[in-house]
Amino acid sequence: MAYEFKFIQRVEFSDTDMAGIVHYANFFRYMDSAEHAFFRSLGFSIWTQQVEPPVGWPRVHAECDFKKPLRFEDEVEVHLLVSEKKVKSVSYVFKFHKVGAHPAVEIARGRITAVCVTEQHGKLSAAPIPKVVADKIEVAPKELLD
Amino acid sequence: MAYEFKFIQRVEFSDTDMAGIVHYANFFRYMDSAEHAFFRSLGFSIWTQQVEPPVGWPRVHAECDFKKPLRFEDEVEVHLLVSEKKVKSVSYVFKFHKVGAHPAVEIARGRITAVCVTEQHGKLSAAPIPKVVADKIEVAPKELLD
Amino acid sequence: MAYEFKFIQRVEFSDTDMAGIVHYANFFRYMDSAEHAFFRSLGFSIWTQQVEPPVGWPRVHAECDFKKPLRFEDEVEVHLLVSEKKVKSVSYVFKFHKVGAHPAVEIARGRITAVCVTEQHGKLSAAPIPKVVADKIEVAPKELLD
Amino acid sequence: MAYEFKFIQRVEFSDTDMAGIVHYANFFRYMDSAEHAFFRSLGFSIWTQQVEPPVGWPRVHAECDFKKPLRFEDEVEVHLLVSEKKVKSVSYVFKFHKVGAHPAVEIARGRITAVCVTEQHGKLSAAPIPKVVADKIEVAPKELLD
Repeated sequence: MAYEFKFIQRVEFSDTDMAGIVHYANFFRYMDSAEHAFFRSLGFSIWTQQVEPPVGWPRVHAECDFKKPLRFEDEVEVHLLVSEKKVKSVSYVFKFHKVGAHPAVEIARGRITAVCVTEQHGKLSAAPIPKVVADKIEVAPKELLD
Repeated sequence: MAYEFKFIQRVEFSDTDMAGIVHYANFFRYMDSAEHAFFRSLGFSIWTQQVEPPVGWPRVHAECDFKKPLRFEDEVEVHLLVSEKKVKSVSYVFKFHKVGAHPAVEIARGRITAVCVTEQHGKLSAAPIPKVVADKIEVAPKELLD
Repeated sequence: MAYEFKFIQRVEFSDTDMAGIVHYANFFRYMDSAEHAFFRSLGFSIWTQQVEPPVGWPRVHAECDFKKPLRFEDEVEVHLLVSEKKVKSVSYVFKFHKVGAHPAVEIARGRITAVCVTEQHGKLSAAPIPKVVADKIEVAPKELLD
Repeated sequence: MAYEFKFIQRVEFSDTDMAGIVHYANFFRYMDSAEHAFFRSLGFSIWTQQVEPPVGWPRVHAECDFKKPLRFEDEVEVHLLVSEKKVKSVSYVFKFHKVGAHPAVEIARGRITAVCVTEQHGKLSAAPIPKVVADKIEVAPKELLD
């Protein structure tokens, strides 16, 4: 079982905007990359075809507090922590730090709630998380989530 | 003075993902477009060069609740409402509805807090909203924000 | 029958990069928007479900020459012209001009070749353009393509 | 001196579109990432502040031929090759292959020409490539460019 994952993201030129910093919407793309790498580390794809029926994980909530800017070629560690596990959803906290920065300053903190869904006839419906997946995910210790 | 703006957004093909729906991070881009059109409607650019010193509006918080999916070629109305005005920041609520849908179902609801900043020697600092800008923005009536 | 379409695109903040200009990859997104609006003007979606079997239009070639930069809040006219029509593909030229600029300076010129495909069992295969679609598209006069 | 660089790119979920494959405009973002990593391998940033005056590298031409689709979680090798070096510009060829595919099938082939520019008073002008940069870049052997 796992409750965390650390993902290293390099800031690309096209992630920046005319203010010279990473456009904030890209922080959500970085969180996605961390979540998908977390799933791969558990043996699954987030586009989960390894279970029957296949499931997907659309978001019902996403948010982020932005504290410091990120710039081109920065390397950022996105620390995913599972903050809640329900029958049909998983919630995550994401802590952003620049790699190699001393002292370690939090750049941003995000939160995402993803719902497990199946698709039937083009319609998405919430569904219980498949047992083989749920068995591998646990909630992080409370002190790590602060 | 103004406390709201309605912006019509067409969903483009490249806004969708392999789940067949708009990738959620693009909802933040749609909110940006609405905010920037709101500023233009007041006679300013969000990259506000019409004041001295020029100011910008980076986000310190962004969030969204996703209720229904959007699909390619949908037209969506993004209804911006000013929810709070402080000395150095403005907060917005964004209500998403599909154009022409009956009954009108809320697709998503977002919230953004943008801070007024000036740049000196490549460093951004929060600054009071210039009076000519602040004088044109007011908070929406409470009943509209529910 | 139609051989051209003019699409107006507003440059959004998130389309810019740290060089202060539109990131060049977004010119391709603008060409897409023009192409899809062209198809809508013909009564079809580019995700063409109005024919049986449905067809899609992936690109086999895309290119662009960049002559002048575009900046935030510029309005740009994307002038689509059909440059070639084959049994299974359509090629376009796209001429970019800033709205309201005098003299009219060409900002960029793009070219895309899109192939008509059907999907069977998750595999895409080139297919003849459906007659109802092909009948509405003609090649632009040679002098317009220069 | 160097004439090539191999960059590994993981396809992210947000790179896909509703056709279930990587949206073609993202191939250009992948080429950029390869080019920027190439420059880092030479000891420079593509946003080249290590020379006086600093230089940037906007594109004057970009193109790509798309042969096979890429899908979510594919790993793709982007093989950058320098195809031409002029006083004020560098041209590249990019060959895309899926990591681990046997036989090795070319997915796509791109070409970019980037011009060395300096900025003065907000205006970009083409400039000779700084000697310390030019001295590190050479043209790839012709047989590799086929």
